[in-house]
Amino acid sequence: MPSKLKVALLGATGETGSSIIRGLIASTQPHYEITALARSASVNKPALLEYKKKGVNIVAVDLSGPEAELAAALKGFDVVISAIGPSELMQQVQLANGCKAAGVGRFVPCCFATIVPPKGILILRDIKEDVINHIKKIYLPYTIIDVGWWYNTTLPRLPSGKIDYALPPYEQSIAGEGTTPYALTDISDIGVYTARIVGDPRTLNKYVFAYTEMRTQLEIYDLIEKLSGEKVMRNHVPREDIAAGVAKAEAKEGQIVVGTPEFYQLAIFQYWNTWGIRGDNQPEYAKYLGYLLAKDLYPDLQGKPYLQYCQEVLDGKAHVVYKGVTFFE
Amino acid sequence: MPSKLKVALLGATGETGSSIIRGLIASTQPHYEITALARSASVNKPALLEYKKKGVNIVAVDLSGPEAELAAALKGFDVVISAIGPSELMQQVQLANGCKAAGVGRFVPCCFATIVPPKGILILRDIKEDVINHIKKIYLPYTIIDVGWWYNTTLPRLPSGKIDYALPPYEQSIAGEGTTPYALTDISDIGVYTARIVGDPRTLNKYVFAYTEMRTQLEIYDLIEKLSGEKVMRNHVPREDIAAGVAKAEAKEGQIVVGTPEFYQLAIFQYWNTWGIRGDNQPEYAKYLGYLLAKDLYPDLQGKPYLQYCQEVLDGKAHVVYKGVTFFE
Repeated sequence: MPSKLKVALLGATGETGSSIIRGLIASTQPHYEITALARSASVNKPALLEYKKKGVNIVAVDLSGPEAELAAALKGFDVVISAIGPSELMQQVQLANGCKAAGVGRFVPCCFATIVPPKGILILRDIKEDVINHIKKIYLPYTIIDVGWWYNTTLPRLPSGKIDYALPPYEQSIAGEGTTPYALTDISDIGVYTARIVGDPRTLNKYVFAYTEMRTQLEIYDLIEKLSGEKVMRNHVPREDIAAGVAKAEAKEGQIVVGTPEFYQLAIFQYWNTWGIRGDNQPEYAKYLGYLLAKDLYPDLQGKPYLQYCQEVLDGKAHVVYKGVTFFE
Repeated sequence: MPSKLKVALLGATGETGSSIIRGLIASTQPHYEITALARSASVNKPALLEYKKKGVNIVAVDLSGPEAELAAALKGFDVVISAIGPSELMQQVQLANGCKAAGVGRFVPCCFATIVPPKGILILRDIKEDVINHIKKIYLPYTIIDVGWWYNTTLPRLPSGKIDYALPPYEQSIAGEGTTPYALTDISDIGVYTARIVGDPRTLNKYVFAYTEMRTQLEIYDLIEKLSGEKVMRNHVPREDIAAGVAKAEAKEGQIVVGTPEFYQLAIFQYWNTWGIRGDNQPEYAKYLGYLLAKDLYPDLQGKPYLQYCQEVLDGKAHVVYKGVTFFE
């Protein structure tokens, strides 16, 4: 029997991280020996203790502490995955340095989002790109994984309020005409895809785009109307308004604090622009940027269909994201 | 008979550009219909008129003029290659926009140098990377070509002065111990490699590293001593001096004017650091960064051996680079 791959995950209690750790635990090809890396203040979080019961090791790390200590904690891992929060992305420079010093076999920095040009379209991607450039500068083996937009933040409110429980804590709007296809993935599949990708030698030092379905916002609105029998509000944000929001975000780049309400207010325009207007979040553009497609690498890996997700939402069984989170004041 | 590929080249009279235009003229697979793009003030340069006799079209373009005019001039080209000078690299943003508006099939921005991490090691590469990021932002089909260090700037002075005619206008030094292998190409082969690469559908939206041989500086010094029977001066620049020069260059990034003597004084330390100390300019690192190797794509394409280059230099038959150029005051 081949020995298990040793994988460490930072950020296991976040939205993306908890999907990843579930994916790693469930994975049979390969099997993983899993460690959750957490700040010492967080090692006793109930969610982590739950994972511990399932055989996950919990190890405290301090990204801003001495590099030698961090490297010692990272020693022996085949894979280190980061699902760090948006406001802490640059701390991955220390994490990457620690991985390099420890001889980690593969580092997966926090991307796990839509396909976006490397620079100048989305502040969050600009920062992620700075991390990627640092990884390349220190010649650290890596894999970049992007997954498209989450199913779980696509649906509009139904007048009955029936699916309110499953919606993120902000109004849903349609970017421009709503006719641009964008790649979508159920958040629960991020971990399934990731577990397969990070154990695959073909994806070493590669970019991989793992998404499940392409839809347009109009198609989504039509579908939920049909499935629910309710008529939904269609709040179109005109192209001009999106362009104005993007211009405002660009003017503030560098001054704005990532993770603040102001940041999200502006980031949403950049997102609408990239996936709703420009149409960046598509497999053809990903291939142009050098990504491999998980659909090509793993034809057996289907992902949850969007239709099934909608049905789960209507049945009251949906996985809910951003529980208790406030983005805007 | 298949029709010729229509290719345009900007910077055809520079060191790299003149190698490229000779490569395009000589190419038989594919055959090219060649246009040299030049500023209107330059269209009557003797070198361009020489190419004109060989069937090259000369077309005036103004990179800082109206985009519609530039796009009109670029209409119909399968390939546009830029071999623009180092101080004009950012003008390629307008050139790329023109190519996008004209529907050019493939844009090859000016890289044609050593393998370097995308950001933070070499100011010149940082700028080239900004251009590449712009290309990706506008979704313009592209190919990146790097060629390693030129044979033509590797040899030290011989005490007899016999090969002075063939040396670049600055002292040759050894970076650190001189034991780091780096990839080398004769400048005359840049065009040969480029002509093959830009006509190959497999290299569309890809990075290609086309080099001929790996050598260390010590090997080179030993070789020329053996071939010439002369003893050469070995001027080692210690690692600490290189590190100090790099720190100075980094401290000045953003303020320094590319192409000035001060710029070259600092850039040389960054070059020594990247290919002489870090060892970035190697095929393994290029593959890590996502490059295809021309050696894999075109096993028939051998390039001029370094030994043959040395023999040509000693025989007084070498191609001389940077004739009449002064880098430092």
